[in-house]
Amino acid sequence: MTGNILGEKFLVVSFGESHGKGTGVVIDGCPAGLPIMEEEIQKELDLRRPGTSPITTMRSEADRVDILSGIHEGHTTGAPICMMVYNKDVDSKPYDLIKDTPRPGHADFTAGVKYGGFNDPRGGGRFSARITAGFVMSGAIAKKLLKTCLDVEVLAYTLEIGGLRAEIESYDQVREYRYSNEVRCPVSSVAEEMREKILKVRKEGDSLGGIVEGVALNLPVGIGEPVFGSLDSELSKALFSIPAVKGVEFGSGFGAARKTGSTNNDQFILNGKKIATSTNNSGGILGGLSNGMPLVVRISLKPTSSIAKKQRTINLAEMKETDLIVPGRHDPCVVPRAVPVVENVIAIVLADQCLRFGIIPTVIPRID
Amino acid sequence: MTGNILGEKFLVVSFGESHGKGTGVVIDGCPAGLPIMEEEIQKELDLRRPGTSPITTMRSEADRVDILSGIHEGHTTGAPICMMVYNKDVDSKPYDLIKDTPRPGHADFTAGVKYGGFNDPRGGGRFSARITAGFVMSGAIAKKLLKTCLDVEVLAYTLEIGGLRAEIESYDQVREYRYSNEVRCPVSSVAEEMREKILKVRKEGDSLGGIVEGVALNLPVGIGEPVFGSLDSELSKALFSIPAVKGVEFGSGFGAARKTGSTNNDQFILNGKKIATSTNNSGGILGGLSNGMPLVVRISLKPTSSIAKKQRTINLAEMKETDLIVPGRHDPCVVPRAVPVVENVIAIVLADQCLRFGIIPTVIPRID
Amino acid sequence: MTGNILGEKFLVVSFGESHGKGTGVVIDGCPAGLPIMEEEIQKELDLRRPGTSPITTMRSEADRVDILSGIHEGHTTGAPICMMVYNKDVDSKPYDLIKDTPRPGHADFTAGVKYGGFNDPRGGGRFSARITAGFVMSGAIAKKLLKTCLDVEVLAYTLEIGGLRAEIESYDQVREYRYSNEVRCPVSSVAEEMREKILKVRKEGDSLGGIVEGVALNLPVGIGEPVFGSLDSELSKALFSIPAVKGVEFGSGFGAARKTGSTNNDQFILNGKKIATSTNNSGGILGGLSNGMPLVVRISLKPTSSIAKKQRTINLAEMKETDLIVPGRHDPCVVPRAVPVVENVIAIVLADQCLRFGIIPTVIPRID
Amino acid sequence: MTGNILGEKFLVVSFGESHGKGTGVVIDGCPAGLPIMEEEIQKELDLRRPGTSPITTMRSEADRVDILSGIHEGHTTGAPICMMVYNKDVDSKPYDLIKDTPRPGHADFTAGVKYGGFNDPRGGGRFSARITAGFVMSGAIAKKLLKTCLDVEVLAYTLEIGGLRAEIESYDQVREYRYSNEVRCPVSSVAEEMREKILKVRKEGDSLGGIVEGVALNLPVGIGEPVFGSLDSELSKALFSIPAVKGVEFGSGFGAARKTGSTNNDQFILNGKKIATSTNNSGGILGGLSNGMPLVVRISLKPTSSIAKKQRTINLAEMKETDLIVPGRHDPCVVPRAVPVVENVIAIVLADQCLRFGIIPTVIPRID
Repeated sequence: MTGNILGEKFLVVSFGESHGKGTGVVIDGCPAGLPIMEEEIQKELDLRRPGTSPITTMRSEADRVDILSGIHEGHTTGAPICMMVYNKDVDSKPYDLIKDTPRPGHADFTAGVKYGGFNDPRGGGRFSARITAGFVMSGAIAKKLLKTCLDVEVLAYTLEIGGLRAEIESYDQVREYRYSNEVRCPVSSVAEEMREKILKVRKEGDSLGGIVEGVALNLPVGIGEPVFGSLDSELSKALFSIPAVKGVEFGSGFGAARKTGSTNNDQFILNGKKIATSTNNSGGILGGLSNGMPLVVRISLKPTSSIAKKQRTINLAEMKETDLIVPGRHDPCVVPRAVPVVENVIAIVLADQCLRFGIIPTVIPRID
Repeated sequence: MTGNILGEKFLVVSFGESHGKGTGVVIDGCPAGLPIMEEEIQKELDLRRPGTSPITTMRSEADRVDILSGIHEGHTTGAPICMMVYNKDVDSKPYDLIKDTPRPGHADFTAGVKYGGFNDPRGGGRFSARITAGFVMSGAIAKKLLKTCLDVEVLAYTLEIGGLRAEIESYDQVREYRYSNEVRCPVSSVAEEMREKILKVRKEGDSLGGIVEGVALNLPVGIGEPVFGSLDSELSKALFSIPAVKGVEFGSGFGAARKTGSTNNDQFILNGKKIATSTNNSGGILGGLSNGMPLVVRISLKPTSSIAKKQRTINLAEMKETDLIVPGRHDPCVVPRAVPVVENVIAIVLADQCLRFGIIPTVIPRID
Repeated sequence: MTGNILGEKFLVVSFGESHGKGTGVVIDGCPAGLPIMEEEIQKELDLRRPGTSPITTMRSEADRVDILSGIHEGHTTGAPICMMVYNKDVDSKPYDLIKDTPRPGHADFTAGVKYGGFNDPRGGGRFSARITAGFVMSGAIAKKLLKTCLDVEVLAYTLEIGGLRAEIESYDQVREYRYSNEVRCPVSSVAEEMREKILKVRKEGDSLGGIVEGVALNLPVGIGEPVFGSLDSELSKALFSIPAVKGVEFGSGFGAARKTGSTNNDQFILNGKKIATSTNNSGGILGGLSNGMPLVVRISLKPTSSIAKKQRTINLAEMKETDLIVPGRHDPCVVPRAVPVVENVIAIVLADQCLRFGIIPTVIPRID
Repeated sequence: MTGNILGEKFLVVSFGESHGKGTGVVIDGCPAGLPIMEEEIQKELDLRRPGTSPITTMRSEADRVDILSGIHEGHTTGAPICMMVYNKDVDSKPYDLIKDTPRPGHADFTAGVKYGGFNDPRGGGRFSARITAGFVMSGAIAKKLLKTCLDVEVLAYTLEIGGLRAEIESYDQVREYRYSNEVRCPVSSVAEEMREKILKVRKEGDSLGGIVEGVALNLPVGIGEPVFGSLDSELSKALFSIPAVKGVEFGSGFGAARKTGSTNNDQFILNGKKIATSTNNSGGILGGLSNGMPLVVRISLKPTSSIAKKQRTINLAEMKETDLIVPGRHDPCVVPRAVPVVENVIAIVLADQCLRFGIIPTVIPRID
């Protein structure tokens, strides 16, 4: 298989570049009969859209979805769904300046080698976070599918930025407050501190990283295809495709390494007539299969690589070390805009898994 | 695709159960002409074999590889390679006792639901760490392929057990000392502490987790197929297939979340005529592509779920909560035996990537 | 994998409908650095375009290619290439009339059942021959790739229409004369008879079938991945995706069933220093692998299902048998317009095979 | 994907060689809970077994199935099923004689080039019809699955040998008489003529080809994944993997090329409350989807390439033309032994399709 394809039954094909005509996605395998309105897709895109607050990049894009195929009379048809957003606010000049000087922390160098210099360098081309617009458009449909067929809900939110960590109290809190502030953190007081820290670091010409947590509620037991197609395997593969992700952990994650069996094992209990666990160190996954508890995954995002501070790099034309100040418009912290991306990527994987396992049907029954 | 398949060009199919006839693997797509001796595969298997020290399970298996196809006159033929190890020291009685009481932290419950109770429960069946023997057999061939064609070397080792963390000084140290002790840690003094902690916790009927670090040296620049087939995506997918893994991180990993762009970005420098970076926070991956620096990945392993302490679970026949003391023979800490597994799984992914990218040929030239 | 994907390394994703916004294709995996001009793609599209002669449908479409991604400064970039043609001359009214009466020989009935009635029925939706525009756009790039890297040439032509069969003398004749007439047959005298027969049958409200032959010259020896990915397997899979195809045969094909080993075996001979065969009953494939002789494949196309004659069908709303006269604009014989489609589909498969086998590189060296 | 894999949800991996330890198969994705006895698999193997009549090869193999994994207490477990037959009656001497002189009509030459001479040449290695034992073992399970879940029946039989063609009257006749004679033809009088012709041609040191017809009854409407995963596409891909197949056609097949729309279209009729067609020129497939009529496919098999007559070939060591008389034991006509292979391959594809489409569940409900 080629690299721009994710999933097997709810299969997503990514295309487009940062400064080309636009960026898009084809979904193949979406069941027929799912009611879906353009607004439902647009709503997700708007959450990812740049230029909406002082803590994001100043590139201003409307990011209006154009549905090119696969939806007819308000329903999916079972045919491939192609969707695009077009690029409008493109300024490729800065990229001419840095053509020969790969930016530290970026794919400029590696992509140049891999594609023999034929890759589109403008705005990072395929390696721009802009291509995550396609993840969001397809995730919007995946989320609708999960909600409609299984009442599964996916929620992502900012857990940590620049070392400031929020203590989450409940998923109700998450649902209600995560989008009440610019950093997308459910705890308002911490959110305000995060925002200030981002603005301060931006002023210094620097950037911040952080952690996004994603949760899926109401997943049926048994999703995943061990051993190699385990649920954690498939989720991590998709999540590492999001630019800037450097780590993925489930449940107690890296903390599990420092626990003992007796403190890490989740005891089975009865929650009414349902089998549950008293704690959720597993993050909802046992043996690569969902266990009915909330699926909990955390993603570490590195600080934005494009910073205004002077850095060292190589002038490739002369093969000499040189200084570089990265031009262009960039987010001082990718975490807030990564929130809807993470949420939608999780939804894509779960929709795909549920279709593979046959618990989402290939035709959604018509509701009258 | 089904769940027991990993990779696309160096494609591994896993089969077998813990207490059935044995466990095995088919490799499809291995280039023709690779010289390979049974001993080279056996050597890797021996590193994973149980029953060799006081800190592993007491199940005693010879784990002799039986090559069933695909190797002829000391070379791979280009045909599928099927290999098996047979189960000898099987004691399925303990599993009768716990048939109706799923073990906390195990796949007993989730697998039972997924497969409608038809799954082979003896020894955990497909969910036993015993199936990683197949990962090791196929990894042995992958390592030979990487070494022969590209001089790529893969090294894994114990970084942390029970909170005791080793400070690695060099990859030479790793190569020389990691197998000099039972815990497979390159720093002898820490290794001894780890060993004692494992023995102490075992005596308490408990278990420990830890962290394995894996490194790949000499990788060419540009390996990986962004966006969804990025090198980190493919590695994490494979690594989460190893039982007990709860987290995967590359380079600065979760630490990147607390850094700034100026401290996390690796500056490009010239190392002779080769482009390198002054630090390796990227872990050798930029934009999902290898950048020529050592690939560095860390895996968090949870403490063994099967412990001798009393735990709470559900009696499924009566749907009532009950106590459980898990019977059977188990490792008090999976980290040491996970080391060769992690190393071989990394090798499988890298061999597959290099074949996909065309830098390993489909026929290995004959050396006379 | 889902149904709208063909190939693995030169991977084609089809999308679009007959009466929607348009029909398109994404190619993922095309090597970087291939020089390609819009005109080269347009030229192939023009050969498939409807409304150009009295023996084709009267639907008139410009079918101008719009390249949405993946090509930059006249070269492929290694990124996914998305291309579309838009629908302009759409008349969906006839499809309202036949909504409840599936057309004999068409997918109306089977698609309606499969997609629960949610499929787009206008113009046959996804089951229209119009979607082959995407096959042609991607095939144009595949042909350029094969020509540039391997000097492989693919030629298709009309061999038989309505029982009238041409005797091909040489591939030079094919190359020179196949597009010299409306039926795309290299033998002018037979072409004229075919044309007259089509016009006569059209007047009767009926339609004709025929046979297209495809040839690939200069293929290297050893293309194909037995057993299940044999070259004939992969070609036939792709060719049966073309609407109206009912049979595929290679070399002596169905004739081989009536021969003996001594008359069907091709004797090996030396052609200069090259190993060749004295005859080509194998059609260039031995054991699922190309053998260096011309690859020869024939495709049987059924007569167009949409005819003006009265036919019997079911009124699905009333579940009663009824008469039907199919409205709309249709080709009286699909063979001539199938010629470029067959040629391009063969090219797609061969490009994919050569990429998988590593004989086309992932970056095309820049020619200065 | 690699070449030795067929299908996606009922996924078959082929391994083994003609003169190695044996030949086998792994099935991944078979639903859990299917009751299956070793005898059901053995019964199919016995139909393919060589050495059972004067019209087959004299190689004598017991071909006893060894189930290595995936079946527990008489049911499939949902885990991969590995099965093998071992080679016993191996005589590799003749292959030493022809090491440098590729047999006309065989893969000796093409495989030698593809695998750089590293392929196992003994008995044709991977290119021997012996590997179809694996197709039969996996097909036996596919047939049981289709019968158990959907009451689908697959029947193959000899339609034509050496130009002698049987007229089939009914599928009851097929079911009752096809295995009543050595050539596996349902019409006894024609079967006797076929048998005599084979014996006559064998005496002359020559061989015969023929046609096998395969039928699937009771298929639900809508199986197949257009456009590229159409039912005919998937079946033809699998059928061309059977050694010696040179053509595949559905329904009116190549005959459709000579018909008109009005004579080839099948009229829709009501058969009680079921929608059917008055004729079956479609062979049960419309628009790449099953239409509920019997699926009818025909396979052209070339005459056995290994014949006792003198042939011309190249001495590769000296690069000179030379004579060759092929040694070894061979079938004078592969058609009779191909019958169970074709039947089982069709079953594999249909089981895979039904699993993909979700109409076979992933767990078979337990029958008490």
